[in-house]
Amino acid sequence: MQRRDFVHQALLGGAALAAWPRLGGSLPGGSPLGGRHARDAAASQSLRVNGQRLNGWLAAFDRVGRTPTGINRVAYSPADLEGRAFTLDLYRQSGLAPRIDAAGNIVARVPGTRADAKPIVIGSHVDSVTDGGNFDGPVGSFAAIEVARTLAENGRRLAHPLDVVVWQNEEGGTYGSRFWAGLVSEADLDKVARSGKTIREGVGLIGGDVAQVASVRRQPGSVHGYLELHIEQGGLLEKAGLKIGVVQGIVGLRWFEITITGFANHAGATPMDQRQDAMLAAARFTVAVNEAIRRVPGRQVATVGRVNVTPNTTNVIPGQVVLTVDLRDIEQRTIEQFTQTFEQLGREIGEATGTQFRFARLTDSKPALADPRVMDLVQGAATSLGLTHQRMPSGAGHDAQEMAHLGPMGMIFIPSVGGISHSPREFSHAADITNGANVLLHAVLAADRALD
Amino acid sequence: MQRRDFVHQALLGGAALAAWPRLGGSLPGGSPLGGRHARDAAASQSLRVNGQRLNGWLAAFDRVGRTPTGINRVAYSPADLEGRAFTLDLYRQSGLAPRIDAAGNIVARVPGTRADAKPIVIGSHVDSVTDGGNFDGPVGSFAAIEVARTLAENGRRLAHPLDVVVWQNEEGGTYGSRFWAGLVSEADLDKVARSGKTIREGVGLIGGDVAQVASVRRQPGSVHGYLELHIEQGGLLEKAGLKIGVVQGIVGLRWFEITITGFANHAGATPMDQRQDAMLAAARFTVAVNEAIRRVPGRQVATVGRVNVTPNTTNVIPGQVVLTVDLRDIEQRTIEQFTQTFEQLGREIGEATGTQFRFARLTDSKPALADPRVMDLVQGAATSLGLTHQRMPSGAGHDAQEMAHLGPMGMIFIPSVGGISHSPREFSHAADITNGANVLLHAVLAADRALD
Repeated sequence: MQRRDFVHQALLGGAALAAWPRLGGSLPGGSPLGGRHARDAAASQSLRVNGQRLNGWLAAFDRVGRTPTGINRVAYSPADLEGRAFTLDLYRQSGLAPRIDAAGNIVARVPGTRADAKPIVIGSHVDSVTDGGNFDGPVGSFAAIEVARTLAENGRRLAHPLDVVVWQNEEGGTYGSRFWAGLVSEADLDKVARSGKTIREGVGLIGGDVAQVASVRRQPGSVHGYLELHIEQGGLLEKAGLKIGVVQGIVGLRWFEITITGFANHAGATPMDQRQDAMLAAARFTVAVNEAIRRVPGRQVATVGRVNVTPNTTNVIPGQVVLTVDLRDIEQRTIEQFTQTFEQLGREIGEATGTQFRFARLTDSKPALADPRVMDLVQGAATSLGLTHQRMPSGAGHDAQEMAHLGPMGMIFIPSVGGISHSPREFSHAADITNGANVLLHAVLAADRALD
Repeated sequence: MQRRDFVHQALLGGAALAAWPRLGGSLPGGSPLGGRHARDAAASQSLRVNGQRLNGWLAAFDRVGRTPTGINRVAYSPADLEGRAFTLDLYRQSGLAPRIDAAGNIVARVPGTRADAKPIVIGSHVDSVTDGGNFDGPVGSFAAIEVARTLAENGRRLAHPLDVVVWQNEEGGTYGSRFWAGLVSEADLDKVARSGKTIREGVGLIGGDVAQVASVRRQPGSVHGYLELHIEQGGLLEKAGLKIGVVQGIVGLRWFEITITGFANHAGATPMDQRQDAMLAAARFTVAVNEAIRRVPGRQVATVGRVNVTPNTTNVIPGQVVLTVDLRDIEQRTIEQFTQTFEQLGREIGEATGTQFRFARLTDSKPALADPRVMDLVQGAATSLGLTHQRMPSGAGHDAQEMAHLGPMGMIFIPSVGGISHSPREFSHAADITNGANVLLHAVLAADRALD
C-alpha cells in the first residue's frame, strides 16, 4: 500500500504533496492480515470523506453569483466563469490536474492500476438557473472532487481510471454531457443560452472549442460506470424521513410551446358572448392539463411555467397567449399518451372559446433508466453506512441521463429541505451532504470491483 | 348675418381667412324671410359637415404611430407627440386658435354671441392603446374640429361659446377630462403611464404643467353641454343594422390588480400534490371570474387582460402571478356585488391551491349617465338627418364620463365593423363617420337653443 501511495503521488506530481498533509500517515504502513484484496476491502470499509472540508467549500462557493434574488450562475455568464475558476482551484488544491475539454467541461483523470480498464466517471455541474440556489450541482461536483481526494489521501488507488468531471451548462440542456454522447447538433450550437450567448460562443468563452468537439465524444460501452450525487429537488425523502434516494432513472421530458390565437378587442364594449379571449382559453387549458395529469395514478407531472399575453393590457381582451407545458414521466408511453390528451384539450377548448391552439415542441428527451447493478451498488453503500434509503425516480433532468448512453449509470439523492429547488431557498443539511458523498465514495469503490 | 360673419372672422384673426375659401360666399347675404332666429334655424337645417375633408384627415392620420402590430400612440410617447402636432395643425388649418391648457389638453374656444353663456364643449382624444386602431378617439376629435369649421365656413355663430377639446391620455385613465373635473389626485401624478413616464412627467412633456392644473378645473354646472362622437367599439349597431347609437351612459368600471403568491419550485421534481402553483391558481380564477359574470343575466363584463408570471420559465412552477380584472356595468350595485364575488373566489381558490390572493384597485369609476335632454337632442338630430338609431349604454369609458360631473352630457356612437376595437383591425366606414359628425353638428345646434 505504501508503494502504491508513492506511485500515486508520483503520478500526481510533487505539488500535490504539500496539500495532502495526511497522506501516507493515516493508514497503517502494512497489514499482517490476508492478501491485498482483503486488506483493501477492509481499509475501504472504514473510509470516509472529509465532510467538514466539503461543506466548507460549499459555504465559500455561496458567495459566487449571489444576488439579492438568488444564485445567478447561468452558463457563460461572468458568475459562471467565476464559479468555474473557483472549482478549478478546488481540483488543484486537491491534487487533481484539471483540463478543459473541447466541450468546455472540466475533467481530471486519476489513473487506475489496470491498464486496459474503462474509466469510472463521477461529477455534476456548477452552473445554476436564474435566481437559483447553491446546492443544485455544486453538491455533486464538489463531492466528486472530495471523493477523489479522500481516495488519494488514504492511498486507495482504483483498478479503473477515475474521471472527475464538472459538466458545463447543465441547466440550459445538459450540454457538456451531451457533447460526450455526441448528441449536440449543429443547430444546437446556434441556440441562445440564458446568458444571451450562443452555445458556440459560450463553449469558446469557457475554454472549449466547438471545432474540436469530436475529440470529446465517447462511444457507448466506453464507460465502466457513471455516478452522480445530487440533491433531490423534491420533498419525498424529507417527508419519508429517509437519508438516501437510490435513483431508478431520470424521467423523460417533453416541452410544448402552445400559441393560442383569439381576437384582441375592447374589454368594455365587447359583450361576453362575442369574445375570442385567448387568455380565457389559456386559463381553461392550464386547468384542464392539471386535472388530466392528476386524474391518472402515477408520478407524471405537467407544469405551465411560462405565459406571455398579447397585448397584455388591462382593458383589452387578450388576442394571443403563448404558454409552455413541461411534461415528464419515467415511462415514454405516458408522455405519448398525455401528448395526445393535451392536443385533444387544445382542440376542444379552442372550439369552445373561438380560439386556435398551435402546438410546437421545444425539447424532447426520453426517460433514462439507471442500471440495476449500479442501483444495487448504491443501495449496498447506503446500507453499509447505516443510512436509510428508498428507490425513486428523478423528476429533474441531469447529466446522468446523457451518460446512460455511454455505460451503466446511477445517481444518489440526498434530501432537499422543504423539497425546494431552483430557488434561493434551496437547502440541504451539511450532514446529509456528507452522507451523500460517503455513499458516492463507497459506490465508486464497489463499482471498481464490479460491473465488468 | 354678413356682419356676424365679419365679427367671427375678426375674432379668428386674419390668418383664418385664406383657409376658408367658402366663407362669406356660401350663404345668401341676406334673406327676405322672417326674423334672425327663423333664418338661422332654416339655414341650420341644411348644414352638413365636409365628410370628404374629415375622412381625408383620418386617412392622413393613419400613418402616425403606425407599426407592424397596429397604431401605437400611447400617451406621452413620441408617436403621441406627433399625433398632437398633427392635430394642432388641423385646428390651425381650420381657423381655430388652439392652446395647451395646464393639464395638457388641446383647447380652442369659438366665442358665442351671448356674453354670459356657458360653453358647449365637444371633443375626444387622439392617444391610443398599445397595438390599437386609428378610429378610437380621432373620429370624435377631428369631427369636433370639422363641426367648428363647418359652422364658421357657413357663418353660423352659436349663442354659446364652443370649446373644441382634444383630451390628453384618455386610454390611460381619462386624465385630461379628470383634470377639468378636479378628480386627479397627487398620488395619480406619480403613476407610471404605458409610455414609462409618470403622469407628472407626461403632462410636462406635452406642454402642460401640473403645478398649474388648478387653473383648468371647472365647476359643476359650468358647462352648458358636452357632446362626444365615438365609434361604438362593440358590435351591437352593426348587428342591428342601425346607423347611430344614442348613448344612455357610460358603464362604471373597476380595475383590480390581483397578486397571487404561491411558491416557485422545480417543475420536474415537485410532485403534483406538493405544489403551490400561482399560475394554476390564476388560471382557475380567470375561468371562475368568466363563469360568474356569465351566470347572471345582464350586460356586465369582466376581463383578465394583463397577466405577468414570475419567474416565467418553462421548468419552474410559477411562484407569483400578477393579473388584472376589468369589471364594468351600468349599475354600481352590480360592480359592488361582483367585487365581493371575485374576492370570495380568490379566497376559495387560494385555499384550494396553497396560494394567497391580494386584491388592489387600480381604477374605480362610477357609472356616468347621459342627460335625458341631451339624449333627446341627439335622437332628434339623427331623426332629422334620416338616420336609424337606438339607445344603448357605452361599455367603454370615455372622457364624457368625467364631463358628466360638469354639466349635461351626451354621446353619439357610430358602427364599428365587426365590433372590433383596440385592435389594428378597428374600422368604421367613411359614410358612418360623416353621419356621426353631422349628428354631432346638429346636436350642437340644438343644444345651443336648449338646455337652459
